[in-house]
Amino acid sequence: MSNNERLTGILAPVVTPFDARLEPDVERWVRHCRWLVDNGVGLAVFGTNSEANSMSVAERLELLERLVGAGLPPRRMMPGTGCCALPDTVALTRRAVELGCAGVLMLPPFYYKGVSDDGLYRSYAEVIDRVGDTRLKIYLYHIPQIANVPITLPLIERLLRDFPQNIAGVKDSSGDWNNTLAMLERFQPQGFDVFCGSESFLLDTLRHGGAGSITATANVNPAPIARLCREFEQDSAERLQAELDAVRGIFQGYVMIPGMKAAIAHYLDDPEWSRVRPPLDETNAAERERLVAALHAVGFEMAGLASAAG
Amino acid sequence: MSNNERLTGILAPVVTPFDARLEPDVERWVRHCRWLVDNGVGLAVFGTNSEANSMSVAERLELLERLVGAGLPPRRMMPGTGCCALPDTVALTRRAVELGCAGVLMLPPFYYKGVSDDGLYRSYAEVIDRVGDTRLKIYLYHIPQIANVPITLPLIERLLRDFPQNIAGVKDSSGDWNNTLAMLERFQPQGFDVFCGSESFLLDTLRHGGAGSITATANVNPAPIARLCREFEQDSAERLQAELDAVRGIFQGYVMIPGMKAAIAHYLDDPEWSRVRPPLDETNAAERERLVAALHAVGFEMAGLASAAG
Repeated sequence: MSNNERLTGILAPVVTPFDARLEPDVERWVRHCRWLVDNGVGLAVFGTNSEANSMSVAERLELLERLVGAGLPPRRMMPGTGCCALPDTVALTRRAVELGCAGVLMLPPFYYKGVSDDGLYRSYAEVIDRVGDTRLKIYLYHIPQIANVPITLPLIERLLRDFPQNIAGVKDSSGDWNNTLAMLERFQPQGFDVFCGSESFLLDTLRHGGAGSITATANVNPAPIARLCREFEQDSAERLQAELDAVRGIFQGYVMIPGMKAAIAHYLDDPEWSRVRPPLDETNAAERERLVAALHAVGFEMAGLASAAG
Repeated sequence: MSNNERLTGILAPVVTPFDARLEPDVERWVRHCRWLVDNGVGLAVFGTNSEANSMSVAERLELLERLVGAGLPPRRMMPGTGCCALPDTVALTRRAVELGCAGVLMLPPFYYKGVSDDGLYRSYAEVIDRVGDTRLKIYLYHIPQIANVPITLPLIERLLRDFPQNIAGVKDSSGDWNNTLAMLERFQPQGFDVFCGSESFLLDTLRHGGAGSITATANVNPAPIARLCREFEQDSAERLQAELDAVRGIFQGYVMIPGMKAAIAHYLDDPEWSRVRPPLDETNAAERERLVAALHAVGFEMAGLASAAG
């Protein structure tokens, strides 16, 4: 992939394993990242599903250095860098650009609620100004049900007009297809790449010219999701979408982060993977049993995961 | 004040001035802190109204060192230390204890929504364990309309039972008097200090045995608020409360943070004070004019502010 090629297709907001002292477990994490890339998905490390906001800036910088140092390709990386505090967002974003990451996924500052589009515009503009690098590609992160600070269509329009070099796209995790569709119709034709925040909308997004999906479930079901991305114009597409929906439906029955970690722990036979940082809760034994039974019932597997961990 | 005496009375979540590069303006900030202490209120630096969540951990550590270094009394300080990330909360809390701060005001981790009381319990327990200091006094910060992560009564009960040495009280910024009253009735008798989050509830809080108030408006109206705290059992109390309500009502007509900063800028004749960090917006000229006119109309003044800044 050349240095100018844009990120497209499927990316996973990579789950972060923690050791017994609740510190990020770098080795397990790098192995999981490698397995994901080998299965055709890019690395949106430090997303919501990564428990990124439960990690300090120093921890995230260290992890990113280690990931690139381990030989994983920066051109397949879109680390999350949006924090509440401007200097934190700038520090993470600057380092991601220096390391050659293809883009960054940027939450708006999310502590203060009811802030204006003007205030959010100035936040993004200030980051762009401070990083001051034409290589910076920002993907705006719209996840109103968690951040409670939405990225509106007028805000996108204004940012895209003033910073066409740096504003590269959006992840729409609203779960509101009408909103995703509006973004696809208004901004995708300008080269602004729209990623849906769940593979449930993948076929629809691709049929409307979208770039792909950045989706939690890509952590556990990467190859089939990536396959739909390649084959979305073939006759098999509807069937593939239905298969993805069946697997996602199982995980959505649980809290997504501990549920995915429990599945990885099960398929790797590695209980360490179940751990989450507070304030999240691990799945309990009964939940894990039901989850695994449901996955077995649809023939779900995580091919190559065990050997990658060997 | 002895090292064992608990914080009571009025504290201000001190507003943070920023310079033209949007960096914290230490000198103006220390002057304002000194004026507040001279006017009888304690320093809840790094609160919501301080734009604390728009500052990095390093910035907050530096400011706190400078404040103590300037000779302001740590026994009158309750810095905000609650962050999304466990290591950040631990770093800020540990340093506050080392510097002799009387307490810390601790937000729950506020990125993830819908988390369980179990998860929040483990967050606070982990911080207490890592800081590992009997001097640590935590004031829980309940501000559901901003954090979107409430501190429930059962959570308080559990924390107070398991960590009576460290769990010292609460700031209730819910604006829901029934909730404050429930905290006062259930926990204040156990020595758990309840502070209301607005002086609108000050008289009621004190009459029910509460500890005082940690309130934004103490930044601009400290002496009169502190006076009601001293005189709440006298005949003048209802009149004093009404006077406080009149001033607060004016500020509540504006967005509180830029409104208070605009007032300070006006009374100091120092426009630098108006600045806010994104994503917040400054007041505009028309808003400032209306605010100042309304304050003049009720005879509002900020006595000694100009000379303190000289």
